[in-house]
Amino acid sequence: MKAKSSNLLAVDLDLAGSLFAQLDRATRQGPGIVRDSYGPGEQLAHDIVRAAGEGLGLEVSVDAIGNLLMTLPGSDRRAPRILIGSHLDSVPQGGNFDGAAGVVAGLCAVAALHRSGFVPGCDIVVIAIRAEESAWFDVSYLGSTGAFGLLDPKCLSVRRSDNGRTLETMLLERGFDPAAIREGRRLLDPEQVRAYLELHIEQGPRLTAAGLPAAVVTGIRGCKRFRNARCLGEYGHSGALPRTLRRDAVAATVAFLHHMEGVWLRTESEGADLLVTTGELYTDPAAHAPSKVAGETRFVVDLRSLSVEVMESVAEEARRAAAEISQRYGVSVDLGAATDSPPAMMDPRLRSSLMSLLEQPLEMPSGAGHDAAVFANLGIPAAMIFVRNDHGSHNPRETMALEDFAAGTRAMIGLLQKFPL
Amino acid sequence: MKAKSSNLLAVDLDLAGSLFAQLDRATRQGPGIVRDSYGPGEQLAHDIVRAAGEGLGLEVSVDAIGNLLMTLPGSDRRAPRILIGSHLDSVPQGGNFDGAAGVVAGLCAVAALHRSGFVPGCDIVVIAIRAEESAWFDVSYLGSTGAFGLLDPKCLSVRRSDNGRTLETMLLERGFDPAAIREGRRLLDPEQVRAYLELHIEQGPRLTAAGLPAAVVTGIRGCKRFRNARCLGEYGHSGALPRTLRRDAVAATVAFLHHMEGVWLRTESEGADLLVTTGELYTDPAAHAPSKVAGETRFVVDLRSLSVEVMESVAEEARRAAAEISQRYGVSVDLGAATDSPPAMMDPRLRSSLMSLLEQPLEMPSGAGHDAAVFANLGIPAAMIFVRNDHGSHNPRETMALEDFAAGTRAMIGLLQKFPL
Repeated sequence: MKAKSSNLLAVDLDLAGSLFAQLDRATRQGPGIVRDSYGPGEQLAHDIVRAAGEGLGLEVSVDAIGNLLMTLPGSDRRAPRILIGSHLDSVPQGGNFDGAAGVVAGLCAVAALHRSGFVPGCDIVVIAIRAEESAWFDVSYLGSTGAFGLLDPKCLSVRRSDNGRTLETMLLERGFDPAAIREGRRLLDPEQVRAYLELHIEQGPRLTAAGLPAAVVTGIRGCKRFRNARCLGEYGHSGALPRTLRRDAVAATVAFLHHMEGVWLRTESEGADLLVTTGELYTDPAAHAPSKVAGETRFVVDLRSLSVEVMESVAEEARRAAAEISQRYGVSVDLGAATDSPPAMMDPRLRSSLMSLLEQPLEMPSGAGHDAAVFANLGIPAAMIFVRNDHGSHNPRETMALEDFAAGTRAMIGLLQKFPL
Repeated sequence: MKAKSSNLLAVDLDLAGSLFAQLDRATRQGPGIVRDSYGPGEQLAHDIVRAAGEGLGLEVSVDAIGNLLMTLPGSDRRAPRILIGSHLDSVPQGGNFDGAAGVVAGLCAVAALHRSGFVPGCDIVVIAIRAEESAWFDVSYLGSTGAFGLLDPKCLSVRRSDNGRTLETMLLERGFDPAAIREGRRLLDPEQVRAYLELHIEQGPRLTAAGLPAAVVTGIRGCKRFRNARCLGEYGHSGALPRTLRRDAVAATVAFLHHMEGVWLRTESEGADLLVTTGELYTDPAAHAPSKVAGETRFVVDLRSLSVEVMESVAEEARRAAAEISQRYGVSVDLGAATDSPPAMMDPRLRSSLMSLLEQPLEMPSGAGHDAAVFANLGIPAAMIFVRNDHGSHNPRETMALEDFAAGTRAMIGLLQKFPL
């Protein structure tokens, strides 16, 4: 195993450590990190990263909506490029690594290649993407979707949740060009992108649980969500109403959710990827009481999977069970409309290359969304590396060891050296 | 079957109808009835009933805390008396029959006996009890408990929920004597009460479902309630957290409540009396989200039974299941402390006598509490008749047909004629 890693180029941990420290110093506000999309926090991060790119001698440009591109020239300047990066914004009171780790990894990767004298066959572009987090404008992937000219122009009038100012205003303030979004201008041609590579901290606990520094991402799970499910029964006296005459909304909801746990276990045992979550569940505080049979519940059913087919079939089973349980309990379990976001599979060849470059190879799906989904759903081969991170993301307690970062970045460097695959 | 009822004395439905109409006219405020405990609404009802008792030639007295006693003298004036009645207060915006029906039934019963020339062996006292509803002073059975000198004197400083005035103030205002409560004075000697009989509208839908006018009450269910049960898990990302690493408070709560439904079904199938209700259940609105695994739930488990043993054993099983499910789901299901109110069984001999007097005999437990529980728990033989009532009680839509009222009252008259049993 040691042999494998000794063949790989070393990662400049001084560079990485210095960049993370600068980012932390510049954008920490109180306990957490604030890199507000199209605001001063995000801009400070872009300034730090841009200075580093210029220091490495990369060709630096900024597109019309603020995405930062730092290019290590390849032998064929006109060949489709490889992009490596992530976003630089954070959620309010976030951590130092969600997003930034991927951009720093890109810089460390091209620095290592450059230092070794390696000349890639095509340009390798470190990309620092704008406004990935939905926390600010209630829309995810503004920067990457906008780069492909695919944003709905209506988003220009969306107001930022904290300061109430529109995206258009914020773009103009930073010197960017809202017209690019209004006209659907294509700033990046999918045909001219050979691959998109993104390193990101894991947002779940699996690597920590497995004791491994990094893993290859199989795909980004889609989500089918029944946001407004509810059960309508009838209120009654908890001491006077016999079981058979009840129309108990809590009992029916419990039966439904218990059934869905069984569906999950069965689906999982068949080897399919699935997560089933009810994160909100409540009786009506204006009407419920300890001595009342509940007449209503509201709840959420959130299905996640790498497979559209799995989500569809579980949703179908949920609807069937809701009807059956409604009948059985004399209530109406109404799942309501579902919202769908599609899964995005990472490229199989890139995945298997990355796997061969990890000392202890492990693959896992990503539950949260990433810019890589935008690229993958445009047909661009995309790949992601997750790096071990304690305490989840989107909070100030994000923790990533530089050695783990190095393990993931080394695999990315190895992959860049292998192109064309 | 006809023979049985034709042996019974007729009920004066003109008297009953007139009393219900007077009560309705005097105490309806907007859509519902308001007979506020120790307030003007309750007093209006007492005035109407007292006038009727005087009209029937009964001996009328009022005890120190306002309970009204109207006596048909028996042949032995010193023998323990039979009490028949109920309360005259209502909840705010209640219906016309909850409580009042039992007092009117008592008047109709002694009127029928008197008219027939029947002289009872002992005094029969129609009793109109004060302040049974907990809606006003947050304490049930003030009038009946107070008559036996058993109220905690602290209740004198309890403020009425609507006007903020203390029970003491309200008693003084009506000319009653708070000192009787403060000194624990016994206004009624349990040794001098041979039996307590109460007719009441059913507060559940069973008689309507069964198509019967009246039933004999087996007992008043006790309640063991886990008011502050909660489950503590850990919040996490609904897309990133695999099932086996979750500490999902909703999933564990669903498993627990599903288990309790199984316990209920099993206990019921063994013939035991039991109701299990979770009327409140909620995730934390300040922390839950559709994309989060829930880290906390709060809920209520309300157990009702005629048997203390059944409630104890189900509570024990609930605690065992909570521990087992806590382990299984990596959470802490904490039922918290239980509050207990004991069941009160009706007297078996009075029950069987009443059963023999119904054309279509049916017995059922009472889920709600009644003054009869106070008498029964003092060892006084108590019996209750339920009369069919649509739409439950404690709301303006209470409905009781006079014919159903007559069926229940006829059985009470028959029982009074049978004493001593």
